[in-house]
Amino acid sequence: MAVQTAASSTGSTVPTVDLGPATALSCRECGHRVPLGPVFACEECFGPLEVAYDFSGYDTEGLRKRIETGPTSLWRYAPLLPVPADVADKPNLNPGWTRLVQADRLARELGVDAGRLFVKDDSGNPTHSFKDRVVAQALEAARAFGFTTLSCSSTGNLAGAVGAAAARAGFRSCVFIPHDLEQGKVVMAAVYGGRLVGIEGTYDDVNRFCSELIGDPAGEGWGFVNVNLRPYYAEGSKTLAYEICEQLGWRLPDQIVVPIASGSQLTKIDKGLRELIELGLVEDRPYKIFGAQAEGCSPVSAAFKAGHDVVRPQKPDTIAKSLAIGNPADGPYVLDIARRTGGAVEDVTDEQIVDAIRLLARTEGIFAETAGGVTVGVTKKLIENGVLDPAKTTVVLNTGDGLKTLDAVAGTGLTATIRPTLDSFREAGLQ
Amino acid sequence: MAVQTAASSTGSTVPTVDLGPATALSCRECGHRVPLGPVFACEECFGPLEVAYDFSGYDTEGLRKRIETGPTSLWRYAPLLPVPADVADKPNLNPGWTRLVQADRLARELGVDAGRLFVKDDSGNPTHSFKDRVVAQALEAARAFGFTTLSCSSTGNLAGAVGAAAARAGFRSCVFIPHDLEQGKVVMAAVYGGRLVGIEGTYDDVNRFCSELIGDPAGEGWGFVNVNLRPYYAEGSKTLAYEICEQLGWRLPDQIVVPIASGSQLTKIDKGLRELIELGLVEDRPYKIFGAQAEGCSPVSAAFKAGHDVVRPQKPDTIAKSLAIGNPADGPYVLDIARRTGGAVEDVTDEQIVDAIRLLARTEGIFAETAGGVTVGVTKKLIENGVLDPAKTTVVLNTGDGLKTLDAVAGTGLTATIRPTLDSFREAGLQ
Ligand SMILES: [Zn+2]
Ligand SMILES: [Zn+2]
Repeated sequence: MAVQTAASSTGSTVPTVDLGPATALSCRECGHRVPLGPVFACEECFGPLEVAYDFSGYDTEGLRKRIETGPTSLWRYAPLLPVPADVADKPNLNPGWTRLVQADRLARELGVDAGRLFVKDDSGNPTHSFKDRVVAQALEAARAFGFTTLSCSSTGNLAGAVGAAAARAGFRSCVFIPHDLEQGKVVMAAVYGGRLVGIEGTYDDVNRFCSELIGDPAGEGWGFVNVNLRPYYAEGSKTLAYEICEQLGWRLPDQIVVPIASGSQLTKIDKGLRELIELGLVEDRPYKIFGAQAEGCSPVSAAFKAGHDVVRPQKPDTIAKSLAIGNPADGPYVLDIARRTGGAVEDVTDEQIVDAIRLLARTEGIFAETAGGVTVGVTKKLIENGVLDPAKTTVVLNTGDGLKTLDAVAGTGLTATIRPTLDSFREAGLQ
Repeated sequence: MAVQTAASSTGSTVPTVDLGPATALSCRECGHRVPLGPVFACEECFGPLEVAYDFSGYDTEGLRKRIETGPTSLWRYAPLLPVPADVADKPNLNPGWTRLVQADRLARELGVDAGRLFVKDDSGNPTHSFKDRVVAQALEAARAFGFTTLSCSSTGNLAGAVGAAAARAGFRSCVFIPHDLEQGKVVMAAVYGGRLVGIEGTYDDVNRFCSELIGDPAGEGWGFVNVNLRPYYAEGSKTLAYEICEQLGWRLPDQIVVPIASGSQLTKIDKGLRELIELGLVEDRPYKIFGAQAEGCSPVSAAFKAGHDVVRPQKPDTIAKSLAIGNPADGPYVLDIARRTGGAVEDVTDEQIVDAIRLLARTEGIFAETAGGVTVGVTKKLIENGVLDPAKTTVVLNTGDGLKTLDAVAGTGLTATIRPTLDSFREAGLQ
């Protein structure tokens, strides 16, 4: 991996930024390229920018070996990410390389063939959600651009991931949340010692404020992981695709079920799978990507079912708070991918989400966040509807930890209460 | 690894049990040996039984290679554990191989030389505590002995670890807890769908009842992970020693700080280190083991400081509930190990525990359970007192996750609350 020298479209030379194989940012709509920098929207068409790479120097077997002998974290894929080659030596949380669980007991309950169903359990990450993957990329971009403060707006998982990553790396952090967030979530974000600022207003107000701050001198030196660092941040989701394929023995899954919040994760998983095909690391075979939403926030599912290309915004009302984005930025891309690969987008009710959380816990011992209830619930529904093929290799994502959404299963309680005697035990019929 | 045929001390042959290199149970006090089975106390002297192995067939380099190419879970050490060789193919939670974090920012705060301080972060296990390691061993023993129900008494981490492991393996489970446990802890244990029984009484009453149940026909076919399966269960803690040494590049740490509940974890870490020396996997050099307790439950620390060989029981009163065992079974062994290796046993107040949780979170982005606050707090105190050498390689254990003891840091809150405007941001002095 060579150090990159980037030239802007106007021909002027900018300072060298070492983000490994990343060579530029490129507009997903019009293809316009700009040098690597803390920008996220195309200056020509306002389309989203994404990271472009030069992978031309890699030979397949050398790359495979380099990955397989790399660290047991997502940095084993550093050659395919916008990070410097020595990233694993820098202080960061080293997320990733989470378990791919062969879920035979869940398969039996869902009517899937034995050995064909897998759960990718991202609750094993350092702060127990997939957000550690994306924040880890944003942190390296922040280092490269000379930022000293890591920031974000959040109502949950992201706040903890940013706070922890900043603490570990010795960055300042400032996380903005609605001021009336539940105390438990405040504690999980505040414990890392960064600044945690409550905003009097809704989550939309928080976001609007953050956009203002980026344009203001007061926000100078601040990297907002999901705003001005978003192109780098988003690339972290590719590692889910890489890990799944490597853990399947360098094989594509036939079907993969991904939750939809902004839709970015799903589009980047597709990008990751296509990269592995192009690099020769997996055989080029068809795969289907399925998107999963909660009924109470199902704009992409609604558009898919109606055959629309555009996504009509919704006002979220669901227990799956980490997926409650009513106007998902990557919605149209998700529709395109689901249709192109022969997948689908489906949604489930809050009741089905809770049932699915319990189902996954009692069959596989995995306690998922509500988002995991969404993907497992949608998988069940898609099988029942004959949309998902139970004879094919299927991977279901669990992106977060049940400890963070305990309220969803708060009704769960004791089987029985007894006195500490064998008689009482027998009377309760517990044998 | 050959299948074992065990003969009891009286010469009768018992059914073959395949627990890999484990050959018998041996009394830690009198050395009396019995065949592998679900027993935990010596029939001669009532001393604790522990697993004896035959490692004589291993050559060092072959074993090292086998470990290094093994799974990225504790099953990479299957050749050194009481489990069958094909254990990784059986349904279990595949815990272990958690991060060893080089904690340079914590080191700076504690006055430890750069590159010399490491945190072994066991919150990355499937149910987010080191209990997954020990329960995984008990599960294999339960399988080998034909048990169909996995059971335990618990007030916290163990309940979830047993519930999850049983669910994944298709075992029935029945976990006994005091009936008045906090609702959050009840949910964390109940979500896996096994039986969760509240006992009207104290934790001591729960334990007494479990012992009765083991001796009764009603408990037939039940494996109590920390009672009749305890000798196997306890061996899981050896894997912490194995992982630490392998992650240091097959090198012994100079100093290691371990929390003390029953004391079993500390004694097994010592056993694991000595095994690696005997197997030639690490160079034989001196190491010191330090025990860490909360002041509100410090029977071993008190005995160590007083120069006693026996441990006087205490009535626990501390926020470090997972360490609150007032009469630790392995206390005398811990005293022996701390003295033999040149270590020490120390304790910290609840206030110091909370400070240490915050210190670890803000320097390394690791949110520890109260037990992790105990080890970090004790490390700080031992350095300040000149007992722990800041120039030597030191490993501090974090055995659980802060999400499970949120109450300890409940006071943590917002830095500021502002209106969603730049003026309000500036007024609050947040730049
Ligand atoms: Zn454009
Ligand atoms: Zn004995």
